[in-house]
Amino acid sequence: MAAESAARGGTDWLDAVAFDERGLVAVIAQDAASGRVLMVAWANAEALAETVASGQAVYFSRSRGRLWRKGEESGHRQRVTEVRMDCDGDAVLYRVEQAGGIACHTGRESCFYRVFRDGQWQAVDPVLKDPELIYRR
Amino acid sequence: MAAESAARGGTDWLDAVAFDERGLVAVIAQDAASGRVLMVAWANAEALAETVASGQAVYFSRSRGRLWRKGEESGHRQRVTEVRMDCDGDAVLYRVEQAGGIACHTGRESCFYRVFRDGQWQAVDPVLKDPELIYRR
Repeated sequence: MAAESAARGGTDWLDAVAFDERGLVAVIAQDAASGRVLMVAWANAEALAETVASGQAVYFSRSRGRLWRKGEESGHRQRVTEVRMDCDGDAVLYRVEQAGGIACHTGRESCFYRVFRDGQWQAVDPVLKDPELIYRR
Repeated sequence: MAAESAARGGTDWLDAVAFDERGLVAVIAQDAASGRVLMVAWANAEALAETVASGQAVYFSRSRGRLWRKGEESGHRQRVTEVRMDCDGDAVLYRVEQAGGIACHTGRESCFYRVFRDGQWQAVDPVLKDPELIYRR
């Protein structure tokens, strides 16, 4: 993951990504150490390019309509150790080192903290840090 | 993952899923043993309901416009050991036991077989079985 690598190859690699009609591709963030799936978000071409150039996970926030540098508010940045793409090019995988061990805005390690059990969704993972403390300014 | 569980709780749990305007939710399949992210696909309410009832991964194929019971052609079924949902309800995680150790239609373990390296996507995972043999009828 180096800016020089991205520069060397130009941006031809972005042509292989099957962005949807909104110009977005699904991105999964996976903890590089534990293998835990942390979150799913979206990226546009600019977000992918900045991710591979900076080595920090960048997404596109659909709700805010702009680039989302993960951790810009929470401090819970993601250092990207590997970027992969799937067979049809419409999904990308970031393998990351998760700052603080917290990816979710609820203060949990992973956004996937609810498991389907006994006919309902049950929150099974602990809140590691109070969101009010995470987002306090 | 049992049909009785789904029946006990009715289908209220489906109301918590934030299906998009197409009635779909993103689904990640992760190998339960290795933690490898195998694929990303989509599910509608029917696919989710059948998945939790049958314990076999069911998706909705956008290209075919119908339910896709993973492995129906390839034999590479996925037994679902756990279903999780993310914080905003628009992504679901299936933890699976992957039949044949092959999830991808290219004959590879994972659809994420291309890694971004030296400015380009490089296929780094081996083809475990020739797709022509997988899909031979």
